Amino acid sequence: MKFDLIRTCPDTRARRGRLYLPHVPDGVETPCFMPVGTQGTVKAMSQPELFDELGFRIILGNTYHLNLRPGPEAVKRMGGLHRFIAWDGAMLTDSGGYQVFSLSDLNKITDDGVTFKSHLDGSMHHFSPERSIEIQHCLGADIIMAFDQCPPYPCTRDKVAEASERTHRWAERSLAYHMENGDPEQQNLFGICQGSTYEDLRIESAQQIASLGFAGFAVGGVSVGEPTEMMRSAVEWSVPHLPDDRPRYLMGVGTPLDLVESVAQGIDMFDCVLPTRLGRNGSIYTSNGRINIKGSRYAEDTSPVDPNCACAVCRRYSAAYLRHLYKTNEILGCRLATYHNLAFYASLMQKIRESIDHGSFSAFQRDFVYRNSSQN
Amino acid sequence: MKFDLIRTCPDTRARRGRLYLPHVPDGVETPCFMPVGTQGTVKAMSQPELFDELGFRIILGNTYHLNLRPGPEAVKRMGGLHRFIAWDGAMLTDSGGYQVFSLSDLNKITDDGVTFKSHLDGSMHHFSPERSIEIQHCLGADIIMAFDQCPPYPCTRDKVAEASERTHRWAERSLAYHMENGDPEQQNLFGICQGSTYEDLRIESAQQIASLGFAGFAVGGVSVGEPTEMMRSAVEWSVPHLPDDRPRYLMGVGTPLDLVESVAQGIDMFDCVLPTRLGRNGSIYTSNGRINIKGSRYAEDTSPVDPNCACAVCRRYSAAYLRHLYKTNEILGCRLATYHNLAFYASLMQKIRESIDHGSFSAFQRDFVYRNSSQN
Repeated sequence: MKFDLIRTCPDTRARRGRLYLPHVPDGVETPCFMPVGTQGTVKAMSQPELFDELGFRIILGNTYHLNLRPGPEAVKRMGGLHRFIAWDGAMLTDSGGYQVFSLSDLNKITDDGVTFKSHLDGSMHHFSPERSIEIQHCLGADIIMAFDQCPPYPCTRDKVAEASERTHRWAERSLAYHMENGDPEQQNLFGICQGSTYEDLRIESAQQIASLGFAGFAVGGVSVGEPTEMMRSAVEWSVPHLPDDRPRYLMGVGTPLDLVESVAQGIDMFDCVLPTRLGRNGSIYTSNGRINIKGSRYAEDTSPVDPNCACAVCRRYSAAYLRHLYKTNEILGCRLATYHNLAFYASLMQKIRESIDHGSFSAFQRDFVYRNSSQN
Repeated sequence: MKFDLIRTCPDTRARRGRLYLPHVPDGVETPCFMPVGTQGTVKAMSQPELFDELGFRIILGNTYHLNLRPGPEAVKRMGGLHRFIAWDGAMLTDSGGYQVFSLSDLNKITDDGVTFKSHLDGSMHHFSPERSIEIQHCLGADIIMAFDQCPPYPCTRDKVAEASERTHRWAERSLAYHMENGDPEQQNLFGICQGSTYEDLRIESAQQIASLGFAGFAVGGVSVGEPTEMMRSAVEWSVPHLPDDRPRYLMGVGTPLDLVESVAQGIDMFDCVLPTRLGRNGSIYTSNGRINIKGSRYAEDTSPVDPNCACAVCRRYSAAYLRHLYKTNEILGCRLATYHNLAFYASLMQKIRESIDHGSFSAFQRDFVYRNSSQN
């Protein structure tokens, strides 16, 4: 996998890059945000809206969910995930590790892997590093993730150390299985660092994972309920130990402010359910902060939800109409809010990239933090 | 309101027309189908999808629902329904009569009007012919409907006669209120014939309503649970007594076969929730009949839901993906099925209009009935 570093910020660790992936031969511009398409669809959005209208070039799929429905072998028989969901860009699948711990009703961890009960029908399943990679081979995403053990927050030092050690062993097994059975030209395997909130464990994990021949590196074990400052520390401790010439992916993060601050720490890739999930709940990002569109103050507000936004929703529809759609539980409400929130994220990443290009990222960051530090 | 009759079918009562409305100065081509936007949104669809992509030029709004939320005066203050929902075409609002009988928890009918309890919060409301028209003046649709009493099915002859007589008195009051307080250049008031399943009452109602100076005429009291043949008879009895030079609207109808058969009876306009409601339930119209996309036979079907359809859904997505979206309760499933079903209706109306233009409607009808008579 070719990753071009185009420019670095002189005052921060922020960097502009271009990630060449099998389904995006022209390259994904980084830093980038990847919308989450858990079950093979970014909730409430269509594929052309994401690709053609909002310009996203890579989205996520979740191995845990796609393994249950429609099943990896079915996806493979239908030509892989890209073709199955008719997505013109690149995809990334996670390893399923996060979900088997957080979603499944019951799980039993051994060194071999995790046995868990489906949250849908109670059926029993087993994920090992080898099976996780095998499933991801069936799905065929451009970027696949090593199987890891993500400790909860808070977690004792002993348990974190144990999870990190297991994650390292599983990283080696994930990589070995992929090199032997996969097609590294078509699928790029990323390693995941753990270490929770412990500085020495974060550093040790980053160093160990970095020593393995992964195509890219993810900071995992964040966005599990820890305070923002702890997430920032985890990134700050990990990034310096990851190779400069490989992309860095911060998993499950975050708010607009998180994105700006983490780009400043040297992160290149993000994914998060916030813009889509909050949108479905009527919470809308604007240049003046996040608003709840259900509020009565919008009952007769004929201006767009964000007067400074140029997205298709803000060009056509009023805040009052969006509010009406939410008050009446209409599907179009979810559609419009999700679309706008993703447009907001796309526009933010565009501004971040432009400011790095123009050598003005530090100023952009200062200004953004000043305007947004009271928001979430 | 200008209504051009362009061509009539030599063998049936089918006719091609063009209906010039304030928001469609180039005219709506008839026979036409009007998607239902009950609460100011055609469920799961966006306005540009309806107007630009599928070519619909007129959609419905429901007075009963819009009166409760967001309220007619609020809509008026925001510039009317077209502006509120950002719809570029024409709109038709019903009178609320149908819903106060079918949806509200309790209703009390007197000659003055109907007092009813909101299905949302139990609040009490009163609709009279005058108030219904006043609300429709606030909403500002291109076509508005007289307030009528729609008897249920089945219904005794005495009760139908009573409802018809009241409907006639209310028609006169609706018209008088509109001529005095409305703007007939901007809003065209249609009358509604009743008469249920009784031939003489249908004829009498059609004659009486036709004698009043309405801009167009609707056959009402159908699609209330009666067998298809009775709906067909109601149309057959009513239409000959309606003026040839005014548009005829069959309310709440129907299946694709209903549309073809009713066009043959001289109907120009239709509305129905079937394509949208069935779509949301996973029931999809195809050139080979209606299918349930949740069926296991589509689990790995990589062809479009209708290989003969050229809509954006069929061009991009497979039946297997649609099925997956339904099995996982994803919003995109509703979106795609609704879009396709409305594309199917738009295409059917286009074929009907072309066959009348080309003088081949009878042959089209025969062929369509032959291929579809076992379907619904």
